[in-house]
Amino acid sequence: MEFLPLRNFPIVKPGDNLPKLIVETVEKNNVSLEEGDIIVVCQSIVSKSEGRIVNLKKVKPSRLSVALAKKLGKDPREVEVILSESSEIIKIAHVIISRTKHGFVCANAGVDRSNAPPNCVTLLPENPDESAKKIRDFIRKKLGVNVGVIITDTQGRTFRLGCVGVAIGVAGVKVLDDLRGKKDIYGKKLVSTITSPADAIAAAAVLMMGEADEKTPVVIVRNAPQSVFGESKCIELVRPKEKNLFV
Amino acid sequence: MEFLPLRNFPIVKPGDNLPKLIVETVEKNNVSLEEGDIIVVCQSIVSKSEGRIVNLKKVKPSRLSVALAKKLGKDPREVEVILSESSEIIKIAHVIISRTKHGFVCANAGVDRSNAPPNCVTLLPENPDESAKKIRDFIRKKLGVNVGVIITDTQGRTFRLGCVGVAIGVAGVKVLDDLRGKKDIYGKKLVSTITSPADAIAAAAVLMMGEADEKTPVVIVRNAPQSVFGESKCIELVRPKEKNLFV
Repeated sequence: MEFLPLRNFPIVKPGDNLPKLIVETVEKNNVSLEEGDIIVVCQSIVSKSEGRIVNLKKVKPSRLSVALAKKLGKDPREVEVILSESSEIIKIAHVIISRTKHGFVCANAGVDRSNAPPNCVTLLPENPDESAKKIRDFIRKKLGVNVGVIITDTQGRTFRLGCVGVAIGVAGVKVLDDLRGKKDIYGKKLVSTITSPADAIAAAAVLMMGEADEKTPVVIVRNAPQSVFGESKCIELVRPKEKNLFV
Repeated sequence: MEFLPLRNFPIVKPGDNLPKLIVETVEKNNVSLEEGDIIVVCQSIVSKSEGRIVNLKKVKPSRLSVALAKKLGKDPREVEVILSESSEIIKIAHVIISRTKHGFVCANAGVDRSNAPPNCVTLLPENPDESAKKIRDFIRKKLGVNVGVIITDTQGRTFRLGCVGVAIGVAGVKVLDDLRGKKDIYGKKLVSTITSPADAIAAAAVLMMGEADEKTPVVIVRNAPQSVFGESKCIELVRPKEKNLFV
């Protein structure tokens, strides 16, 4: 399996045709997309192309946001946006851990200042699976190849330091792979192993993207294992409360 | 960045010289190790080579283990081993979520039946960083190349379904990469981004290993970003309680 970062991706603006930009940048990188490639795309450029940017100058914070912002040492307008993107507050630490409208639990409901234009924050895409599907469909139509697509975000972990990339939207890629019933090297059946291929690929792809100004928000993954491919939706990754294992 | 799984790794037994087995299997796969390669090794073969296997027939469960096992529908002897490998119980669900003696929080303290010989369980290595260092030192001495080494385990996540590979031991690889102060594409400083290169690589490598009987417990990673290399210890990945973000 290979990870090929696309260099010199242009800065994405609201209204840009992202699938088209991806295909153009693939060509500029002298890469030709192949059947079974996976296109891993950083959430921030998806959000920007879809106009999911908020200019903080236009935000009027509520009293609650002002009070919370004071406690957290944050911009009250940013807190206002975070709350409006949340469906449930999990914990208020130095960041706000909340459940997004999609169901994901993450810091600040995915609202992010980094790689957003000055005075702006980006929001997560409205429907990241749909965003992924648009890229997949465009490439199939334009180049005649079937690729998988993963939209990534970078998230913290409960018991481990350091953020890693995870999948928040997919097309043609499995978010879960149920290995129960398969046999181990001694012929014993595995009883509880369900893995997440989409998150595994997202993690390494986001490492290739870097987080700072490297302008590589898209990584092509080639020769991924067959087990990765299939139809799924990212909501399947959300652990239901009744299956709560850790907390 | 490329992930090259080594095929047909032999079944590892207690007392086996694992670094030597890795070098031999690399050769049988017609791969030659290069400066800057990262050798990703599944915990189970490290544990087995170090004799970290318990035959459940030799375990006498305590009353507590018997009571807990009844509640969990588990083998009381396995529960006994899990408790003896734990330094703190985090939650008792259908699995036991505990803190290992190393400090990691995971299911069943890393005690695993899969890919263990019949009637046996494997325990995590005593000191996975040291296990990684032994492999690194052997390869440097034998082949004259400097490689990084990551020992992986497969772990569940608090708010997401599906397990992913993580690093539990490293040599020559950074577990955390502090990007704070670097600039984003608009020239703004990143304020809070610390990533985990070792976990990002572990996730994709474990995907290549598969979980069942594919006999590929070792994956070579080539052309990883320079930011991945450096000296660190896996304990740095453990989130201190006072930095508790999510729960």
